[in-house]
Amino acid sequence: MSEPLLSSRRSSSEIDGPEDGLLRREPKRHRKPERHGDWIKIGLGVWAGLATLGVIVVAVVCSGMKPGSAPDASFPPKGKRNVVFMVSDGMGPTSLHMTRSFVQHVKGLPWGETLSLDKNLIGTSRTRSTSSLVTDSAAGATAFSCGLKSYNGAISVLPDGSPCGTVLEAAKLAGYKTGLVVTTRLTDATPACFSAHVNLRSEEDRIAEQQLGDYPLGLMLDLALGGGRCHFLANTTAGSCRADSRDLVAEAQEKGFKYVSDRAGFDSLGKGNHVSLPLLGLFAPTDIPYELDRKSEDYPSLDEMAEVALNALEAATKDSEHGFFLMVEGSRIDHAGHGNDPAAQVHEVLAYDKTFARILKWVESHDAVLVSTSDHETGGLAAARQLHEAYPEYLWYPQVLANASHSSEYLAAQYKEFSGEDEDTFIRKTLIEDGFGILDVADDEVEKIKAHKDNAAWAFADIVSRRAQIGWSTHGHSGVDVNIYGSKGTERLRGNHENTDVGRFLAEYLELDLDKVTAILKQKGVSRTSTGSPEYSWMGRGLEELKANAHDAANFHIDALDSYHGDFKRHVHML
Amino acid sequence: MSEPLLSSRRSSSEIDGPEDGLLRREPKRHRKPERHGDWIKIGLGVWAGLATLGVIVVAVVCSGMKPGSAPDASFPPKGKRNVVFMVSDGMGPTSLHMTRSFVQHVKGLPWGETLSLDKNLIGTSRTRSTSSLVTDSAAGATAFSCGLKSYNGAISVLPDGSPCGTVLEAAKLAGYKTGLVVTTRLTDATPACFSAHVNLRSEEDRIAEQQLGDYPLGLMLDLALGGGRCHFLANTTAGSCRADSRDLVAEAQEKGFKYVSDRAGFDSLGKGNHVSLPLLGLFAPTDIPYELDRKSEDYPSLDEMAEVALNALEAATKDSEHGFFLMVEGSRIDHAGHGNDPAAQVHEVLAYDKTFARILKWVESHDAVLVSTSDHETGGLAAARQLHEAYPEYLWYPQVLANASHSSEYLAAQYKEFSGEDEDTFIRKTLIEDGFGILDVADDEVEKIKAHKDNAAWAFADIVSRRAQIGWSTHGHSGVDVNIYGSKGTERLRGNHENTDVGRFLAEYLELDLDKVTAILKQKGVSRTSTGSPEYSWMGRGLEELKANAHDAANFHIDALDSYHGDFKRHVHML
Repeated sequence: MSEPLLSSRRSSSEIDGPEDGLLRREPKRHRKPERHGDWIKIGLGVWAGLATLGVIVVAVVCSGMKPGSAPDASFPPKGKRNVVFMVSDGMGPTSLHMTRSFVQHVKGLPWGETLSLDKNLIGTSRTRSTSSLVTDSAAGATAFSCGLKSYNGAISVLPDGSPCGTVLEAAKLAGYKTGLVVTTRLTDATPACFSAHVNLRSEEDRIAEQQLGDYPLGLMLDLALGGGRCHFLANTTAGSCRADSRDLVAEAQEKGFKYVSDRAGFDSLGKGNHVSLPLLGLFAPTDIPYELDRKSEDYPSLDEMAEVALNALEAATKDSEHGFFLMVEGSRIDHAGHGNDPAAQVHEVLAYDKTFARILKWVESHDAVLVSTSDHETGGLAAARQLHEAYPEYLWYPQVLANASHSSEYLAAQYKEFSGEDEDTFIRKTLIEDGFGILDVADDEVEKIKAHKDNAAWAFADIVSRRAQIGWSTHGHSGVDVNIYGSKGTERLRGNHENTDVGRFLAEYLELDLDKVTAILKQKGVSRTSTGSPEYSWMGRGLEELKANAHDAANFHIDALDSYHGDFKRHVHML
Repeated sequence: MSEPLLSSRRSSSEIDGPEDGLLRREPKRHRKPERHGDWIKIGLGVWAGLATLGVIVVAVVCSGMKPGSAPDASFPPKGKRNVVFMVSDGMGPTSLHMTRSFVQHVKGLPWGETLSLDKNLIGTSRTRSTSSLVTDSAAGATAFSCGLKSYNGAISVLPDGSPCGTVLEAAKLAGYKTGLVVTTRLTDATPACFSAHVNLRSEEDRIAEQQLGDYPLGLMLDLALGGGRCHFLANTTAGSCRADSRDLVAEAQEKGFKYVSDRAGFDSLGKGNHVSLPLLGLFAPTDIPYELDRKSEDYPSLDEMAEVALNALEAATKDSEHGFFLMVEGSRIDHAGHGNDPAAQVHEVLAYDKTFARILKWVESHDAVLVSTSDHETGGLAAARQLHEAYPEYLWYPQVLANASHSSEYLAAQYKEFSGEDEDTFIRKTLIEDGFGILDVADDEVEKIKAHKDNAAWAFADIVSRRAQIGWSTHGHSGVDVNIYGSKGTERLRGNHENTDVGRFLAEYLELDLDKVTAILKQKGVSRTSTGSPEYSWMGRGLEELKANAHDAANFHIDALDSYHGDFKRHVHML
């Protein structure tokens, strides 16, 4: 069929002015049809034209529906394009079931009422890094930003120590506007991987500097909203966590950034409709509080920040032939997983789902795509937990989560500051009864909290999880595949993919040349070590130096899996 | 565009004999083209015809690729059809990551080398039942067989106590051949739901009777291969687990069944090429051994049984306008989950994946579809496990699973039979060293095994899981969504679905009327209780009677979720 399809690719406008092929054989003589034959020709011509148009229309409509493996002539689309990439950090498959069931319970919905995410599931992502079957957020985000695997801890740097160009950088260099919206530190692994290159994620001071343009590519970020102010303040300033006295906020303002740092400042942005870029909004010293604890008068929500970003970036690209690349992270789903706190997590997922719905609505009325996925699962979350040696019943209790009005992190912080006399009553009444709505706390649970006064969050969270019969296998990450969600236009990501496929999709949709960016990064600022290997001093401290200073050498596997070395036996009684 | 598309739907053959519309205006005068105008007409006609054909071809090609929610004119397809429905009982998302990574480790494969299942992922399934957020296999399989939700324990019966017609029954009544292939008891919940109706899954004697035709619909099964012989043997016979003296094997043979019960009998089937239906193969008293323990000289594999089923059913439907409905279950993935045995599970998943690949290959060269999904997750499996109070490293160890040559179930059975003198050496050397390849067993692990001599499987499995750093939250089920895999033709199941959508898809693909079957089941054999409500005595014991005899009333929630009732506090020190 390829011949007729190809040869009939002509627009209906050609019918009136045939200039080639079959039509050229008839001289253009008659202005008006005078004979039956002309009517036939016109009829046939109209038919041919409409049918041809039909082929094109049907083909175009269908082209967006082909499986990822099939050739797809309409991908990438032509013309102006926008990409929103969402990361649900640490959200695994069980988070969806848990949150959906929680909502159904709280709102009394039937089981068919699902999350916005559920309605847009297209596939799953395999998450391992070069150094482990269980990735961290840095290697996970490098897979998204560079489309390449690297080691746990790598911020858009490869196992050979060289930087890799990112989707955000390539988009900026191609003329797109760029933005990052997060609820954790702007310098944390996921946003860092799109906008910086360092050998280890802990180098957050250096990440902040690069994010504001202090690296070979110059300023790549047009908009950044989130937490993590402390890495931008000079260490002579209250609230700083920098090691040096650079005042990055002042540097940003000198470069023309609009800077806001609180709710009033955020509100002054007018939902993003009255903002000139570049824009830097840092609304918390480190993390923005969990949604369950967040006071809206103090902090904007993820959804509100996304709204500002969409409006500001849309306005800034209004007259451009290029749109924007925006990364939005539900950063603290992961934190609730690390804390094994199911009540905090369902509210983080709901905030993410609300933001997803807003962005999807925007995307559907613009030349844009939305892709949402996770970097990994956190916590080994399971929606069922055996409490007794006896065979368990098949259930878990969403109402236990519904009774909680604060996170375990919040209660632990309250407890840490407590200096009154009746500690037991404070724990039992003020914290557990008022904070969790739990009335049957056991003595040994209270004792466990008191034994960890400086860091009782895990002990608090366990009280909720056990009663909800929600299980966790770790306070770290796990290896399970995570879900991919996508708008129309993301059909290539249907099915099960390596996480690097997600990054490559983003680049391909915008027709970006990441290798070109990598080449610039490698060219500029490279020097040679004594052994002749390249050294990118602009990236900050080298891996060897970082390794020498690290408290945990296990972070430094680069491209081989660890082997079992009897660590079980040494700790057999621990948990 | 609908007008031109519709009006141009005519075949190219019409060009030579126009009879209506525009073409009718020109009398059919010239046999040969004599003028330029004719050449134009012919050219335009050919163009119009080819373009029209193009519309049709492109539309037909595309119609199979539309998202599930879109109208789909080509569904169901016309003509002869076959359905293979595979159930990976208890296989959750982590099972795939664990098994894939295990294979990559053992075979030294790169991370992009995936399972056959991975390559055919199309969506996920929500699994809750009417009675719980965490389903059992009975309610899960009722969702598949009837396309309807019911309570945990229900074998194709609804919360109101009435039977619901199944896909297998409707297929048989419509002229299709039918088959079941499992590795557990044929009377267990999943196969039972397709071929029987009882109020509680434990009624396996009655299930066996119905499976051989002793119920209102008569014989619906043409082929059944698996384990569970004990419910078919009279209680006067060795190896029976029936409560009565009915000899169902003899009854089956009287009805014309070919019956085989061992490897020699299986081999006599000649891979299914020389079998006349109906066929009953029961190769173990209860379960066929785990793939990790299975001796191929004693038991057929799931893949071998599926091969026989495909060949026998294809041959039996060769001259029919109807094909077959076959359900194939990887039954014991679930058992490995219940046992928290990761080594046993990876081999069960691999056996399932191999069977999936075989069936997919068959389906792709026939008028057939393959749908594969799980009823639920089992175990709360997590691919990472924190062993110490200290923050965990991000990893797990597939090589620990690779060292195991037997399941924990097998080792526990060996231990139970041990009557020698040196019990410690038997446990440490014969069982743990030889069976698991584990050389660093700890004293308290051996003590734990000795404390549970009659049922040490959980204690054995924990030794493997801890060293592999594989986590489990329960010996029961969990609520996470499970994956859906499908061949071409199953595009309607893309995305996130309720488990009942899977059952409805199977019925719709074969254009079956399940309500009609339900009506027959309700009509035949119904009587009235003293209160006037319908009673289906042919289904066996009623729910009230079963409830009165049950040891655990918690099994009898029907259509409301349980509420938290302080069960945590009563058992705070247990696990």
